[in-house]
Amino acid sequence: MFDIRPKLTSRIELGGSDVVEQMFAAARDPELISFGAGVPAPDLLPVEAMSRATVRAFQTFGATMLNYDGSYGLQPLRHYIATQRLAGLNIQASADDICILSGSQQGLDLIARLFLNDGDSIIVEAPTYPGAINTFAPFHPRYITVGMDAEGMKMDELEAALRANPDTKFIYTVPDYQNPSGITMSLERRRKLVALARQYGVLIVEDSPYCELGFDNEKMPAIRSLDDNGLVIHLGSFSKILSPGVRIGWVCAQADIIKLFRRAKEAADFQSCTTTQYMLLQYLQDNDLDQLIKNNNRVYRERRDACVDALADSMPGNVRFTRPDGGFFCWLTVDGVNTSELLMRAIQTARIAYVPGESAFANGGDHNTIRLSFSQKEPHEIKDGIHRLAELLK
Amino acid sequence: MFDIRPKLTSRIELGGSDVVEQMFAAARDPELISFGAGVPAPDLLPVEAMSRATVRAFQTFGATMLNYDGSYGLQPLRHYIATQRLAGLNIQASADDICILSGSQQGLDLIARLFLNDGDSIIVEAPTYPGAINTFAPFHPRYITVGMDAEGMKMDELEAALRANPDTKFIYTVPDYQNPSGITMSLERRRKLVALARQYGVLIVEDSPYCELGFDNEKMPAIRSLDDNGLVIHLGSFSKILSPGVRIGWVCAQADIIKLFRRAKEAADFQSCTTTQYMLLQYLQDNDLDQLIKNNNRVYRERRDACVDALADSMPGNVRFTRPDGGFFCWLTVDGVNTSELLMRAIQTARIAYVPGESAFANGGDHNTIRLSFSQKEPHEIKDGIHRLAELLK
Repeated sequence: MFDIRPKLTSRIELGGSDVVEQMFAAARDPELISFGAGVPAPDLLPVEAMSRATVRAFQTFGATMLNYDGSYGLQPLRHYIATQRLAGLNIQASADDICILSGSQQGLDLIARLFLNDGDSIIVEAPTYPGAINTFAPFHPRYITVGMDAEGMKMDELEAALRANPDTKFIYTVPDYQNPSGITMSLERRRKLVALARQYGVLIVEDSPYCELGFDNEKMPAIRSLDDNGLVIHLGSFSKILSPGVRIGWVCAQADIIKLFRRAKEAADFQSCTTTQYMLLQYLQDNDLDQLIKNNNRVYRERRDACVDALADSMPGNVRFTRPDGGFFCWLTVDGVNTSELLMRAIQTARIAYVPGESAFANGGDHNTIRLSFSQKEPHEIKDGIHRLAELLK
Repeated sequence: MFDIRPKLTSRIELGGSDVVEQMFAAARDPELISFGAGVPAPDLLPVEAMSRATVRAFQTFGATMLNYDGSYGLQPLRHYIATQRLAGLNIQASADDICILSGSQQGLDLIARLFLNDGDSIIVEAPTYPGAINTFAPFHPRYITVGMDAEGMKMDELEAALRANPDTKFIYTVPDYQNPSGITMSLERRRKLVALARQYGVLIVEDSPYCELGFDNEKMPAIRSLDDNGLVIHLGSFSKILSPGVRIGWVCAQADIIKLFRRAKEAADFQSCTTTQYMLLQYLQDNDLDQLIKNNNRVYRERRDACVDALADSMPGNVRFTRPDGGFFCWLTVDGVNTSELLMRAIQTARIAYVPGESAFANGGDHNTIRLSFSQKEPHEIKDGIHRLAELLK
């Protein structure tokens, strides 16, 4: 067999882990309680409404649904996103400020492609979304990490980082119910972040797939809504509020950036799925997505409560954990335990799965953290799983 | 407004044309006869069958259709592709040899990401698919172009190119009813291509979205079927035979390459659309795609005939054209005319649109060629349009 290794780009690192595939496999094992994949609860996905909407959409739009459309994405869907989803985050936008993406994950990829040369500095939270590290990695950025507390990124650390690295390309943040920590950036910090980015002339990448999953019906204004200087690239998605399988996300940014996204999108995969864009459009016309989100958030809140209560009840003294106000994730710090090494035993002996926090630190280190996703399991399963984890840690 | 230019990667070239968007816009103008976009005929897309299949799919697969699945793509769909589509091209493959992509366009992008460093040499046909040039461009390859005749890539030129550039990363070819020239590579040349690639230790990228669109019910064996050494990366797609809007294509290659594709795919957009993968799966179970392709090819054949007959009837003596045995495209050479400069007059005065061939030459030059797509129009419109083009050229 032809050896491809001499042909590969220097951007590829062979080996590496397939942690995401492993988590998906674990989630399919019915014997196992998986806190792994950050995935919506299957029972909350609107199967019948989407099926009905699809039939209506085919009647209304016909062959248009099965053909090419164009790289920006459907104009009426972009209009809906601007007026219905972004307006709720205080963002003033029109359809022209938006490009449809194949999930907001693609936004990270296109940002890397548009902005990063080998060795460019970017600032990320510690911990940060592991999927972002995975996507940025082939572009060989130099990561500068900024610590977090209960209000999000620490602004004194951020300022020091910017002062020391004025050529930073962008600051990457997941401000709402962060994956993996569950932490939400406070309004005050959001304002400070925008002020610092402006002062140092650095872009902000606001990755907000979870922003509508708040448990207290309060929405924090998006970072993009606090800036009028075109500094913020805002990424959003239907994946967590409606369906990840349709693969429809978006970017909202200043006009020059949207034009570049369109071109990069054309080169990457020509366009997102026409069929599911029309399905969504019809679904959104026929159904009340705000109500669905509200109902779902009640369910996720119960699961969060089950998770946090069980953690409080059962964990030994060397474990600390966050209490998220929304989203899918709790974050554990387990003093003195290497959670990556523990995972195999967790799966094989305790019959639970989790994501070791290690993959969330761009510059490595911090082997003693765990991401727990509580979104997919019923409260009694969550409690059972947390108790198994507690036994394992004792 | 914040000036993003200092932040951009050196891979970006600002400016540049939006010829694809222009072609889509032209196609929407009902007054205009567009030979621009290479798009299936809307009336041949199976709207009702797909709508019925979707309802059944939602009944059968439920919430699974709306959730994440994984980066390889659905196993049963990969099995179908291996046994039903690739087997017809003589390719021996199983589901494990395949990764689902968001159209075969994404395959080009992932290949560039996996194999190209700045300045790496790749060999492409002259002319070649403009979308490939667009996708490879940010990776700054050094293009070596090889001319074509009626049997495809000229093998003596290819051999000379390989001898002069033994470090070539891959040879890129669209062997079937090529976009843009309509030319099909002969079996003898396919064998020679594989022998040369093996001799020089170079990969082959076989980009074959049109391979099943032959007008004579003959299928040429895929280049991948002629190699048993893992040299060939084969790209295919449902876009031209069933629906481009579902955005489902595939790559078939040796195991090491498929593993790398999966990782690159996860970083790029996590996975292709779960929803349309299940829709296709159900459609393919309930319907006879081979029969649909056969029926559609009869229609495309009539349109090819209308196009070629009208060209023969009306074109002045300085025009030569190809007679494709399948696919969507005729290729014109117009001695002494700059077809890029002529396009505005074609649109505004003659009320027709085409793709100037210039964009199909990786190293520039050749301003005197035209790609005509005959797939979307009825024979009488095609004749009308060709006569208008002939008047313009006279």
